[in-house]
Amino acid sequence: MAKDMTLLWGSSSPPCWRIQIMLEEKQLQGYNQKLLSFEKMEHKSQEVLDMNPRGQLPAFKCGNHILNESYAACFFLENQYKSQGTKLIPDSPDAQALMYQRMFEVLTLHQKMVCVIYYNYMVPEGERHDSAIQRNKEALTAELKLWEGYLNKTDCCLAGKEFTLADVLVFPYIAYMFHYGLSSERYPALAKYYNSLKDRPSIKATWPPYWQKFADQDALKTI
Amino acid sequence: MAKDMTLLWGSSSPPCWRIQIMLEEKQLQGYNQKLLSFEKMEHKSQEVLDMNPRGQLPAFKCGNHILNESYAACFFLENQYKSQGTKLIPDSPDAQALMYQRMFEVLTLHQKMVCVIYYNYMVPEGERHDSAIQRNKEALTAELKLWEGYLNKTDCCLAGKEFTLADVLVFPYIAYMFHYGLSSERYPALAKYYNSLKDRPSIKATWPPYWQKFADQDALKTI
Repeated sequence: MAKDMTLLWGSSSPPCWRIQIMLEEKQLQGYNQKLLSFEKMEHKSQEVLDMNPRGQLPAFKCGNHILNESYAACFFLENQYKSQGTKLIPDSPDAQALMYQRMFEVLTLHQKMVCVIYYNYMVPEGERHDSAIQRNKEALTAELKLWEGYLNKTDCCLAGKEFTLADVLVFPYIAYMFHYGLSSERYPALAKYYNSLKDRPSIKATWPPYWQKFADQDALKTI
Repeated sequence: MAKDMTLLWGSSSPPCWRIQIMLEEKQLQGYNQKLLSFEKMEHKSQEVLDMNPRGQLPAFKCGNHILNESYAACFFLENQYKSQGTKLIPDSPDAQALMYQRMFEVLTLHQKMVCVIYYNYMVPEGERHDSAIQRNKEALTAELKLWEGYLNKTDCCLAGKEFTLADVLVFPYIAYMFHYGLSSERYPALAKYYNSLKDRPSIKATWPPYWQKFADQDALKTI
């Protein structure tokens, strides 16, 4: 079945990375894949637009099914391959509730992170304001403190001892933030989480070959 | 079990409305609930903060499980009450893939809608730019055209003939946009979708008693 899947992806894009981790966890190696360059605007090519009308990566096809949203792809794959590879939705209601809550809360963290890392990329020069930059940084700091608290209380993974769909969906963002300079000293629980998962086979096998250069590599150093 | 659930909500908030529709669909009426006022800043009260540290609504508790994210609450309830009320995740891979893709794509629509409706609310006076307002409107128009195309091709619901979790999660935003002035003439497929679901019992029973006054009621009239 993996031969019937095609992933067009960009290096260091957390949504792309999620699908790659997911495919490893479900033992679906051997899928068709193509690494495209954001810098060369290959995500706006006809090949991508044919699968993803927004011209974004990932563009993912599973048989005839288009699943460009990384959450959609991960949920679909877990549902279709329940008994293959890692079981990623726990049966226990406690772990399940925590998994769902964390995997969707990360959308808020993502939003706040993007506003800091990509401010200059997203806001044209004449519209930039130091007050907005400052506000965005404060919002991200407050958000990160919440996550630091969550991870202080867990065993190793987001929903307890077991690696779940929440980790597939959240880990790439945590790795992303450390790559862009987040301080391990100020966020030790986040750093512990990052270190405990970075060598997991599915994650190691799909580690981004390079990181996007749109953003300052120290963008999160002062957060 | 519904007696063991508590929902703190705000009127016309799509995330709150989703959980209300979900609870109706799963025949979980009789839960504890409290309508709070955004205008009076009741979402920042201690009662909310005890359940939702971001001070946002919904704040939802199901037994001991905190599920403030509307997606998290809906997925959890569907999983825990699979055979009760409406079955909201279809078995057919075709419908399932489409359902997942649409329910997560709506996050992009939401983001673009918020940037138009709440521009003045989100951006302090000294930081506002006509060029940003124009760009936000164009982005929303392009996004809405995509959805108009999607809905042109479906039977009545987002993933085909059956009402699914995608409709629970997307419908409140579509209703929201028509409330804020979206044109039925320019978006006939969206209007048809809206009209075909607005009298569904779960939706009618939970229709917002009033709409938030933060935004201009005609905010989307020119989109």
